[in-house]
Amino acid sequence: MNLVPGIRLAATAAGIRYENRDDLVLIEMAEGGSCAAVFTQNAFCAAPVVVAREHLAKGSVRYLLINAGNANAGTGEPGLRAARETCRSLADMAGCAMSQVLPFSTGVIGEDLPVAPFAQALPGLLSGLDENHWPRAATAMMTTDTVPKLVSRRVELSSGVVTVTGIAKGSGMIRPDMATMLAYVATDATVSPDLLDEILRRAVAGSFNAVTVDGDTSTNDACVLLASGQSVEVVDLNTPDGQRFSEAVNAVCAELAEMIVADGEGATKLVRIRVEAARDETEAREVAYTVAHSPLVKTALFASDPNWGRILAAVGRAGVDALEIESIRIWLGETCIVSGGGRDPAYTEAAGQAAMAGSDITIRIVLNRGDAVSEVLTCDLSYDYVKINAEYRT
Amino acid sequence: MNLVPGIRLAATAAGIRYENRDDLVLIEMAEGGSCAAVFTQNAFCAAPVVVAREHLAKGSVRYLLINAGNANAGTGEPGLRAARETCRSLADMAGCAMSQVLPFSTGVIGEDLPVAPFAQALPGLLSGLDENHWPRAATAMMTTDTVPKLVSRRVELSSGVVTVTGIAKGSGMIRPDMATMLAYVATDATVSPDLLDEILRRAVAGSFNAVTVDGDTSTNDACVLLASGQSVEVVDLNTPDGQRFSEAVNAVCAELAEMIVADGEGATKLVRIRVEAARDETEAREVAYTVAHSPLVKTALFASDPNWGRILAAVGRAGVDALEIESIRIWLGETCIVSGGGRDPAYTEAAGQAAMAGSDITIRIVLNRGDAVSEVLTCDLSYDYVKINAEYRT
Repeated sequence: MNLVPGIRLAATAAGIRYENRDDLVLIEMAEGGSCAAVFTQNAFCAAPVVVAREHLAKGSVRYLLINAGNANAGTGEPGLRAARETCRSLADMAGCAMSQVLPFSTGVIGEDLPVAPFAQALPGLLSGLDENHWPRAATAMMTTDTVPKLVSRRVELSSGVVTVTGIAKGSGMIRPDMATMLAYVATDATVSPDLLDEILRRAVAGSFNAVTVDGDTSTNDACVLLASGQSVEVVDLNTPDGQRFSEAVNAVCAELAEMIVADGEGATKLVRIRVEAARDETEAREVAYTVAHSPLVKTALFASDPNWGRILAAVGRAGVDALEIESIRIWLGETCIVSGGGRDPAYTEAAGQAAMAGSDITIRIVLNRGDAVSEVLTCDLSYDYVKINAEYRT
Repeated sequence: MNLVPGIRLAATAAGIRYENRDDLVLIEMAEGGSCAAVFTQNAFCAAPVVVAREHLAKGSVRYLLINAGNANAGTGEPGLRAARETCRSLADMAGCAMSQVLPFSTGVIGEDLPVAPFAQALPGLLSGLDENHWPRAATAMMTTDTVPKLVSRRVELSSGVVTVTGIAKGSGMIRPDMATMLAYVATDATVSPDLLDEILRRAVAGSFNAVTVDGDTSTNDACVLLASGQSVEVVDLNTPDGQRFSEAVNAVCAELAEMIVADGEGATKLVRIRVEAARDETEAREVAYTVAHSPLVKTALFASDPNWGRILAAVGRAGVDALEIESIRIWLGETCIVSGGGRDPAYTEAAGQAAMAGSDITIRIVLNRGDAVSEVLTCDLSYDYVKINAEYRT
């Protein structure tokens, strides 16, 4: 893990919902940095998302205030008031404008967010800010997550080395749409807000926006990229430096997204669904998501059953115009399982079972209609997904 | 159960996949009857669907030949040959044209359909045809179904009484698209093929096409309506007789569809999702299906947890343009759970839990944007859904 100059973090047990564990995180960026963020596209976004969007538009972000255990979603006007009040408390103590604080919440939907625990915890959080607290912050954000998610990269640019370090949380209600659960990525590079926004949107498209656990887009998804401006400047994406930096952000986001899916509720397998040779990207994406969301495909994956018929049936119901079954090929790992409208002649059940045995599976679907490609990362559907979601109230 | 003059049935244990149980059904209609049918819209429809469509187009249907245990889907050219061969065998023995036989299959996808068991079983099936064998036929079609599904109605028209009797099978891979798993409805009324087709399409739209278990549209869905022509004639839908007859067919289809969902794999609850006051029917349907397919909503239903936040989140991700959370109301049975963008002020957890306690739940979502309505019938997602589909190969 590489520290990011200009970024300090703190976490504490505020008792918002959980007992005896950290549940409140504060991330501080030194003055003069840039911030970019993307949020859920769910029509019913949570109160903190509404407030964070408003504050982000005013620029000069200094603080991210993140609580776990209560999503402050479906809470109407009182929810908005609570989100604003926590920002104001922090701003007053830190001596900045209220709009320089972005609030984030994750946890149960529909319960009022208590503000008293924030007021009590904020002084300690402010005094506890430290460059080293990335792992503690990653842990404090967790809800049904079973592991903290932290990824770090250093990338050498022509004028010096910059760091990109990120943390994320998320395990269920995961089908990010323009963003994901909560992810915070920071760099010490110097990047203008507009360029940072472009870099973030590119990174999110290929990472958080290409994963799904259960198809349920959350009300609270947010991904933030902070650039503290304490290291060399990145000015243009169309230079080797710009590309290298952008790729480092992509890599951190992609790895965090993969960690979210691997930690998907009840997941026993990480499954990459790659659709190739589609007519366009929309079509490729549609097929990939239809397969990724099929409960029958997901339960077959859980059973390590090379049930290609279910994959084929899911492709067939994806709504692709004039799809021809005869020209489709489907691979499980290196094993061709479908060709010519049925089981590939060379396919053996033993080979299929071998391809399904691991915990890391790739399903490749070649439509033979064009050259568009789309890839989605998902997981299987197990008893434990049902158990977790029958017992835990999101 | 009311017999249908002109319709005889037989079932036998042909040993196609199962041991020691009936798995092959023959339905015979007397000469001079009419037949209408709708089939799956999955792009990869099974071989028997292709052949049945061809034969139906030639008219004069006399026989429906239905096997359980093997779907003859994803079987390429050999699958088509097998389906045609079974029709030819039967036609030769029965002394009719091959095109007067419609084949249907349900069961495992992707295994070659053996034709020898058909040749062996057909003579016994033909000699065993009997008006009374509706229940035996309903039982012989079952795969993961736990109960046979049979519905019967008599309806009094101005010139006499007609019967409508139907059977269906289906439990998983259920999200019919223009048709359902296998359903066979027969009447002794006299109805022209064109009118029969219109009556069937209307009935299917409000029944089989409005249910979902897991969102996975099957490759083999088919629904057939036979009119043996042995009773009074129905000539026009726009007469009291035509309406009464059409409603009887609707009622039989709706009840069969409901039985399929209630017998959904692992289902413990039958859930009616009704979207009201939508801008148009497409939007209402989209919201209803998004809620019906949400794994988080389905597991909450399994847990009898009045988790309105998950319902609200699913409505929010349904892709409805400019949806306003403040104007939406959601009811669980008679209990208003959501209004004004959050929990209804009068809502109590006790009332919510009472509304969720039964096995028959209605979720009513009022969008307040127009006057379109759509209703979808679904079930919950339980441990047993995962168990059945991790252990059974469709």
